[in-house]
Amino acid sequence: MINTKVILKSRPKRLIENNNFDIVTEPLADLQPNEVLVQIEAISLDPAMRGWMDEGTTYIKGVSIGAVMRSFSAGKVIRSKNDMFKEGEYVSGLLGAQQYSISNGENLTKLNISKGKVSLHLGILGMPGMTAYFGLLEKGTPKKEDVIYISGAAGIVGSTVGQIAKIKGCTVIGSAGSDEKCQYLLNECGFDKVINYKTEDIDEKLKEYAPEGIHIYYDNVGGPTLDIALANLAKGARVVICGAISQYNNMNNIYGPKNYMKIVTARGHLTGIIVFDYAEDWPNAINEISNWINEKKIFAKEHLIHGLEKFPESLKMLYTGENFGKLVLMV
Amino acid sequence: MINTKVILKSRPKRLIENNNFDIVTEPLADLQPNEVLVQIEAISLDPAMRGWMDEGTTYIKGVSIGAVMRSFSAGKVIRSKNDMFKEGEYVSGLLGAQQYSISNGENLTKLNISKGKVSLHLGILGMPGMTAYFGLLEKGTPKKEDVIYISGAAGIVGSTVGQIAKIKGCTVIGSAGSDEKCQYLLNECGFDKVINYKTEDIDEKLKEYAPEGIHIYYDNVGGPTLDIALANLAKGARVVICGAISQYNNMNNIYGPKNYMKIVTARGHLTGIIVFDYAEDWPNAINEISNWINEKKIFAKEHLIHGLEKFPESLKMLYTGENFGKLVLMV
Repeated sequence: MINTKVILKSRPKRLIENNNFDIVTEPLADLQPNEVLVQIEAISLDPAMRGWMDEGTTYIKGVSIGAVMRSFSAGKVIRSKNDMFKEGEYVSGLLGAQQYSISNGENLTKLNISKGKVSLHLGILGMPGMTAYFGLLEKGTPKKEDVIYISGAAGIVGSTVGQIAKIKGCTVIGSAGSDEKCQYLLNECGFDKVINYKTEDIDEKLKEYAPEGIHIYYDNVGGPTLDIALANLAKGARVVICGAISQYNNMNNIYGPKNYMKIVTARGHLTGIIVFDYAEDWPNAINEISNWINEKKIFAKEHLIHGLEKFPESLKMLYTGENFGKLVLMV
Repeated sequence: MINTKVILKSRPKRLIENNNFDIVTEPLADLQPNEVLVQIEAISLDPAMRGWMDEGTTYIKGVSIGAVMRSFSAGKVIRSKNDMFKEGEYVSGLLGAQQYSISNGENLTKLNISKGKVSLHLGILGMPGMTAYFGLLEKGTPKKEDVIYISGAAGIVGSTVGQIAKIKGCTVIGSAGSDEKCQYLLNECGFDKVINYKTEDIDEKLKEYAPEGIHIYYDNVGGPTLDIALANLAKGARVVICGAISQYNNMNNIYGPKNYMKIVTARGHLTGIIVFDYAEDWPNAINEISNWINEKKIFAKEHLIHGLEKFPESLKMLYTGENFGKLVLMV
């Protein structure tokens, strides 16, 4: 059997270029005891990938040059020498950007396809959905009538945070980079107020929409937006750092929040979310979100692209904001 | 009766200049009903004063040009038309940098001089001591065997934090700007390790002294030191922001911590201390610290300067690090 895979050819200086990747084919090795062969159906494109293309940090090792690009992928077990996995079962994990993946079963998650189709398990029922769920509920600790502001709100994490916050009785303000995305947040996700950060002044709009300040800031973007949010905190505010998409292409000169002392004067605190810390509770969360989807309380927009060869250009869309909904590459 | 007072003549552009202040004399007004006349004995010189000399923020209003410079001061009630205060009692409050102050008794704190002499009530038994006590115990939540790093450790807040942390069973690392201050921390305050930030590399020394990372960072300085501390957090670390003395002369271009995402990866959180939030518990804290002083478990170094006319040059010492111990101007 021949495998097609996306390999890392070179590390980006700053922005990702198409030629940082190569698509190569290679015969698959024979299965060893305990191994399973997964036919990948869907590959998640995630902001963290930019970091994985670098040399690496203490937190996470970079992808080696020539190795298959790391990715969360999901697919069907088509051969198994592992008692834990049966042929026909669906799984997800760090299976890489490729057509087939051989795994020893460690860190492989079984997917309950009755809860949603395979691509959803990379989005709202997968890591981004879990990041939204635990980041909001465990770190943001929303209370009824709290005002929450979410940056990068049209992304899968942001839109899920906002919709769960609505379920919890909060007033939800989100910012995004186009009128189309803002309309989507208002009309399909039920946000109360939206800010198009490309045409509107976030600070001015926050002061208008949240004159008493914001109780929760869920940060997906970092940079100056974080500073604006810090300047608008209500007393006792929780700042949840989820990502910093504005900074991922700029790791050598990160924008540090100049207004960090506002956390002190607001009697607030800043913390973050590492979603794998809640791995044991993922099944319950998947269940709850899946129920909300069935009850039409949550809407999960997907942006599906077909074809492994589209990997480089699809990934770049994440950093330019061109994607609209959870970006998944279907193999 | 004639009062001598320090007034704010002009706002500093960046660094405080002697001629931002003027010393003027003026006859005292007659006492109105409910008012008390306090003869000031000691004036606290505090980092926050630089901010008070500016136009003001939402958090705290600046001192008006021509008005007496705001300060925490302590002294004796020498006349009283207020039933709450008797002649001969000692009080402290925002009584200003002057010889006499008239107060309506609001926000005036009675001092128990049996717990320590008047200048101590502006230091370890006053706001700085309370900041150390509540910042460490309520926000840093020290546990036995935690490693704590304190920047600006030779100041009254830092040295008190370190000594209380020792009482709580922590390993205490402090940084300061001279070998003399470092020796003081080791020999008189019982710190375990010290770093002279002018001659040693803080990052290198933290990695040597706290190879597993720091559980608590008590930040008195801000700036790049905060970034170094963030890069050395242990899992679950608490970052307590108390001050940012390195930034007070630089408020239009604050250094934002570029490593703020390290708080997330360390599963830590960042918060701060507003000491007045604990006003009700001050008497208990004063009692406990005063007992520790009597038991020789805590040592409170003072730097006393005599003469109201020395106000401007004394205040400047805070920002150059020339003071050694709690800086108090004795009238």
